[in-house]
Amino acid sequence: MAIQQKLSLMIPGPTPVPEKVLQALSKHPIGHRSKEFQDLVESTTENLKWLHQTQNDVLTITGSGTAAMEAGIINTLSRGDKVICGENGKFGERWVKVAKEFGLEVIKIDSEWGNPLDPEEFKKVLEEDKQKEIKAVILTHSETSTGVINDLETISRYIREHNTALSIIDCVTSLGACNVPVDEWQLDIVASGSQKGYMIPPGLSFISISQKAWEATERSNIPKFYLNLQSYRKSLLSNSNPYTPAVNLVFALDEALKMMREEGLDNIFSRHSKHKLAISNAVKALNLKLFADENYLSPSITAIKTEEMDAEEFRKIIKNNFDILLAGGQDHLKGKIFRVGHLGYVNDRDIITVISAISNVLFDLGKITAKEVGEALVVATKYLEKN
Amino acid sequence: MAIQQKLSLMIPGPTPVPEKVLQALSKHPIGHRSKEFQDLVESTTENLKWLHQTQNDVLTITGSGTAAMEAGIINTLSRGDKVICGENGKFGERWVKVAKEFGLEVIKIDSEWGNPLDPEEFKKVLEEDKQKEIKAVILTHSETSTGVINDLETISRYIREHNTALSIIDCVTSLGACNVPVDEWQLDIVASGSQKGYMIPPGLSFISISQKAWEATERSNIPKFYLNLQSYRKSLLSNSNPYTPAVNLVFALDEALKMMREEGLDNIFSRHSKHKLAISNAVKALNLKLFADENYLSPSITAIKTEEMDAEEFRKIIKNNFDILLAGGQDHLKGKIFRVGHLGYVNDRDIITVISAISNVLFDLGKITAKEVGEALVVATKYLEKN
Repeated sequence: MAIQQKLSLMIPGPTPVPEKVLQALSKHPIGHRSKEFQDLVESTTENLKWLHQTQNDVLTITGSGTAAMEAGIINTLSRGDKVICGENGKFGERWVKVAKEFGLEVIKIDSEWGNPLDPEEFKKVLEEDKQKEIKAVILTHSETSTGVINDLETISRYIREHNTALSIIDCVTSLGACNVPVDEWQLDIVASGSQKGYMIPPGLSFISISQKAWEATERSNIPKFYLNLQSYRKSLLSNSNPYTPAVNLVFALDEALKMMREEGLDNIFSRHSKHKLAISNAVKALNLKLFADENYLSPSITAIKTEEMDAEEFRKIIKNNFDILLAGGQDHLKGKIFRVGHLGYVNDRDIITVISAISNVLFDLGKITAKEVGEALVVATKYLEKN
Repeated sequence: MAIQQKLSLMIPGPTPVPEKVLQALSKHPIGHRSKEFQDLVESTTENLKWLHQTQNDVLTITGSGTAAMEAGIINTLSRGDKVICGENGKFGERWVKVAKEFGLEVIKIDSEWGNPLDPEEFKKVLEEDKQKEIKAVILTHSETSTGVINDLETISRYIREHNTALSIIDCVTSLGACNVPVDEWQLDIVASGSQKGYMIPPGLSFISISQKAWEATERSNIPKFYLNLQSYRKSLLSNSNPYTPAVNLVFALDEALKMMREEGLDNIFSRHSKHKLAISNAVKALNLKLFADENYLSPSITAIKTEEMDAEEFRKIIKNNFDILLAGGQDHLKGKIFRVGHLGYVNDRDIITVISAISNVLFDLGKITAKEVGEALVVATKYLEKN
C-alpha cells in the first residue's frame, strides 16, 4: 500500500532531489544584492560553464525551460526571419508554436513521434539555402514526450557548415544526462531547466549563449523585457541579476552543481547510459515494446507501449501499490504509453526497483510468467554491473 | 560581531521566511501533473483570492514581480495603445520602459521621488480623454524605491469613471501589507511577488485579472508565449499549469497563505501599520529625516535620509555589528538614503531591534545623545502597544 510522503519520482521532471540540496533550499534567504549572493552567482555560473563544457556565457533565469527556449528565440531573431524547426514530439511542436507566435517563418522538418529527426534533411535544406536566408535551426535534443534522442552532433555539424544559421537547442532532458559539448559542437543557444539533470526542484532555467548569438541579439527587433538576455548579461558582469532571482533555488543549484562536479561528467553520463540500457533491455524481456527507435533512445527517459492495456490504468496501479510515479503519454499518446524517467539523482537501486514494480504488476495481471520476471531483473543487472 | 547565518533581513524583499514555510519548501517535490499537486493549486488559488479580496482569477507564475507586471501589460494591450504611466520612483520608471518596449504610447504622470502621485492629475487627463483613447493606467501602489504609498483608492475611482481604461497596478509591496480590496476598487490587473508580504522566498509572482481585462486579452496583438495569461487561465480550469511550475515554492506558498488566513487580513494590516508608525516616529526622535512625504508612508518600507553621513557606510556598520541587512538607495539615491523593510514576517521585536541598532550606531558616531536613544525606543514602544 502507498504511504503518503514516500513517493519515488520516476518522471522526466521534477526529478528526485538529494537531501543536501533540499537542506540548502530551506536555508533562510539572503539579500539578492548582497556580497554573499554575488559570490553564489559567481560560483554557480562557473560550475554551469563546466557542465555546459563551454566558455560561453551561461545565464540563470527564474522561469521554466520554456521561458529559456523562448528567450533564446526572441533575443536572437527578428520578425519575418526564416528558421528551421525540427519536430518529432511535443516539445518540437511547442517551439514551432513559439516561432510562429513571434512572427518567424518556419520551415518544418519533422518525423513521426518515436522516430528521430533525419540529419540529412537538415543538410539538404541548409545546403539549398544559398542566399543564407535561414537564420536559425531550432530543435530538441532529447524529446521528452517520446524518449527519442536526436542526432545533435551531426545536425550541429550541418548548421556550422551553413555558417549563418544559429543553433537554438532545447537540451532540457539531455544536459547533465549525456554529452552536450557546447563549444566543441559550437552550439549557439542551449536551454535547460533545473528540475531535470540538475537534481533541483523546478523554477530555474539556464541558457548558454555564444558570441555569434550575442551579435544576433543586437539585430533582433522582437520586443521583450523580462526575458531580455542583454539585461541578464549586463547584470552578470557584477554577478547580479536584473530582477529578483529565486534565491533559495540558487542555494540548491550551488549544492547540486558541487555534487555533479564531484561525480564528474563522464561518470554522470555513463550512469545515465547504463540505466537507459538496463531499463530498455528489461522492458523487452517483459514482452513490452519500446516506443522510441531503439537506436535513438534518450538517456533520461524510456517510453514504453502498453498495447492492449490502458497505460493510465497501469501507471495508477504502480503508484498505488509502490509509490512510484511514472509519466503518462501526452496528447494522442495518452493511455498508449507510459514513460519511465531515469534522469538526475537516480541510482542502480531505483532502476531495479522500477523494473521489479513493473514486472510485479504485469505478473499480477497475468501478462508474464515468473520466469520472465526473473529474466528482466537478470538482464537489467547485467547492464548495471557495467562500470 | 556578525555571525554567519544569523542574518535578519530588513529589506523590502526577500523578506524573512517562517520556519514552517522553509520546512514546506524543503519537502521532496511531487509531480506537477499529479492529483496531489492539483489539490495544492486549488487551495492556493482559493487563498490567493481571499488575500486579493476578489472573485477574479488569480494566477501564479514562475518569475519575478516584473514578469507579472509585464504579463499584465502585454496581455491586455496592443501596439500603439495610449496608456498613462504613473512614475514617482524606480518601479514606476520600469513600467514606463516596459510600456515603451512593447510599442505603447505613454502619457507620463510623475512626481518627484519621495512624493506621491497627484490623483487630480490622473482625473484631469482621464476626463479630457473624450475619445476614450486611453486604454490603461499603469502605476505602482507602494513605491519600494522611495517608501511612498500612492493614493490608489482615489486614482482607481477616477479610472472607473473613465470607464474604458484598465487599471494595471504593481501591488508588489502593498498586497499583504495594507488594504488592497481588488473587487471594491475594481482593479483590473494586480501584480505581486512571493518574496514580499507572502513571506516566502522569491520565484513566484501573482496576477489577478478582472473579466474586463480578460476581454481585453482577446484584442491584444502583442506577441507572447511564456507569459500568455490565457494559457494559464486554461490550465487553471483543471488546477494545472501550462509549463512546469516551481513546485516547492508552491508548497511554501500553501503554508504561508494558511498562516496569513490564520492571522486575518485586519490583523496583518494593523501590524504593518503600527510598525510603520513605530519606525517613522522613532526615526524622527533620532533626528533623522524621512525621505517620503509623511502623509504617504508605505506600510512596508521606510526610507531614511542620512544627510552628511554616507548611507552605504551606515548600512555596512549595521550589517557588521548586528547582522541586520537594510536596503540602500537606488540610482541617484545611492548613499543618500537607507531603507528599512518591515514587510511580511516581521514582529514587534524586529522593530525595536532595528531601532536599537540604528540608535546604537548613531550614538557611537556621536550623532545623538543617550537621551535621544531612549526617546526613540519609548516612542516606538508607544506605537507598538496600540492594538
